[in-house]
Amino acid sequence: MKESALKISKGVEQVSSLNPNLKTNVSKNKKNVLKVDEYVQGILKQDLLMLSKGITLVESNNHEHHLIASEIIEKLLPYTGNSIRIGITGVPGVGKSTFIEAFGEYIISKNKKLAVLAIDPTSQRSHGSILGDKTRMENLSKNPHAYIRPSPAGGSLGGVARKTRETTLLCEAAGFDTILIETVGVGQSETAVHSMVDFFLLLMLAGAGDELQGIKRGIMEMADMIAINKADGDNFHKATGAKSEYSAALHLFPPTASNWIPKVLTCSSTEATGIDQVWNHIEEYIQLTKENGYYTRNRKEQTRYWFREFLTEAIQDNFYAKPNRKEKAKSLEDRVVKGEITSLTAIRELMES
Amino acid sequence: MKESALKISKGVEQVSSLNPNLKTNVSKNKKNVLKVDEYVQGILKQDLLMLSKGITLVESNNHEHHLIASEIIEKLLPYTGNSIRIGITGVPGVGKSTFIEAFGEYIISKNKKLAVLAIDPTSQRSHGSILGDKTRMENLSKNPHAYIRPSPAGGSLGGVARKTRETTLLCEAAGFDTILIETVGVGQSETAVHSMVDFFLLLMLAGAGDELQGIKRGIMEMADMIAINKADGDNFHKATGAKSEYSAALHLFPPTASNWIPKVLTCSSTEATGIDQVWNHIEEYIQLTKENGYYTRNRKEQTRYWFREFLTEAIQDNFYAKPNRKEKAKSLEDRVVKGEITSLTAIRELMES
Repeated sequence: MKESALKISKGVEQVSSLNPNLKTNVSKNKKNVLKVDEYVQGILKQDLLMLSKGITLVESNNHEHHLIASEIIEKLLPYTGNSIRIGITGVPGVGKSTFIEAFGEYIISKNKKLAVLAIDPTSQRSHGSILGDKTRMENLSKNPHAYIRPSPAGGSLGGVARKTRETTLLCEAAGFDTILIETVGVGQSETAVHSMVDFFLLLMLAGAGDELQGIKRGIMEMADMIAINKADGDNFHKATGAKSEYSAALHLFPPTASNWIPKVLTCSSTEATGIDQVWNHIEEYIQLTKENGYYTRNRKEQTRYWFREFLTEAIQDNFYAKPNRKEKAKSLEDRVVKGEITSLTAIRELMES
Repeated sequence: MKESALKISKGVEQVSSLNPNLKTNVSKNKKNVLKVDEYVQGILKQDLLMLSKGITLVESNNHEHHLIASEIIEKLLPYTGNSIRIGITGVPGVGKSTFIEAFGEYIISKNKKLAVLAIDPTSQRSHGSILGDKTRMENLSKNPHAYIRPSPAGGSLGGVARKTRETTLLCEAAGFDTILIETVGVGQSETAVHSMVDFFLLLMLAGAGDELQGIKRGIMEMADMIAINKADGDNFHKATGAKSEYSAALHLFPPTASNWIPKVLTCSSTEATGIDQVWNHIEEYIQLTKENGYYTRNRKEQTRYWFREFLTEAIQDNFYAKPNRKEKAKSLEDRVVKGEITSLTAIRELMES
């Protein structure tokens, strides 16, 4: 395959990765098959360098890299799924990094292998994504039982979500049994993370004032646990009060599909208090949901959900791959929003073009 | 156009309505142009029979009817948008019909013209949809200032949502200045309704027990108001207590995009208490959001949202209109869920087929 055909411009990664017009025959290329097996064997041997290289393929916008990544994941599928996947969200300032350091070290002290991933569709690697700076979690990043991977560079939420899902699978195949997926708590990405984890943890601060400004409505009702962070020093009593208030509020919410009653607790990342309770509740949750069947059912539903999301995106990208369609859709949308034409007229015009 | 080409089988209504392969030239057909103008003039003259006929076209699964409906709406667009659109949800048993009767009569007493619509994608007209039985709102249905329209018959949520959006526009052109859109509160349809109204009202009962079983998590955080219904007789004190609890809980939620602080109040549909307060708060909300610009911004965003939803659906339908694609997608999905292949492999296989 010619090099020129592989050059993919930014912003069309989904199109390129799924566009059937860009066929290659990697699987028939002996050199690449070997290469795929090298990755597969390396990852199964828990070689972190091979894991990182594999994730780099997953995150690449190069079509051929994608095909290789896809083959690697396919071969690793039987070795995936054996981790507890935990989503962590909270607005900037809530102390996510410090919490993850303390929580991560606690998890590792329980003889677990921990991978920390992140979703931040707005990030640009050049501008420093969340987790991009490993000094943010200095101790954890030096721990041989922890693997920290920054958020893939910006793109559509669907693209970033796919990369994070696939990275999770690679980490599982590499023996990581606890995966934390961090998100910034201010946009669409929480819903995405909620749909790819077993347990969803919301970090909050005491007080319902400015600290809450950034959090999107609806996230509280997704949470399996609310941890009031920074419950230390002068803040301790305020945090304890907040705990009572949130407990009362959560009690008014409708029951969860998992039959789990969401917990509220306080913790301090700096004093390392309450961290054990967070973990204990997660273990309780996993036990409960494995017993009542929700755990497996939820994972299957998530797989189905993401398959449908990715397929929808692929069909859309295929449609918009034709020249000028995107521009035409945009100008029709503007006319619909201005009230000049109906949606139906606009859609018919676009579909007939 | 031949009659046979117009026969649309059930379950493919979106395909039929938007499929460019089914072209007609209604606009060049003199008879139909006259017909369109008859509808338009009739609706603008507030002729309820013409309104009902127009809505029937909107709800039809017949492609030609759709095209006529689209032309009617296009001509009426300049006369639309002048109503307050209110979504009402709550689980079965909360007393939605009785509330809407009492609330509707109060609204009419304020010299308003009221239309009551419903969204219930699960309904089958033959099995009696919500609002299908007008005796449910006996007094309101006899009131000359009220127009009650049952939910369109079952289909995809997108299809039902489009029909309800278009029906709203027709009602506005016919002079209705207050539109209630009712939904059952147990599925996806609340999010859809929330995205097509100015104000979203959640009806609840006192007590957080069994009454809540059906409500989906996330709906409470969407509500601009929670009204604790049936606050009468023995239930009065319980309802007042619930009001305090929910007020405290809502206080902990992050601020709304509209800057509105969601209200909690009690009401009794049978004793007609609290109904005036519900209306007063809605008027306050409309005033606030018109002043701060949210009202107009939100409407534009909603139009954009639905255009994108309908367009996505049309592109999907167009893709699946090819023979066997749907079956192939289903069988690939099953393999993905079983963990036999990755999403990417499945998608590539489908896109290349």
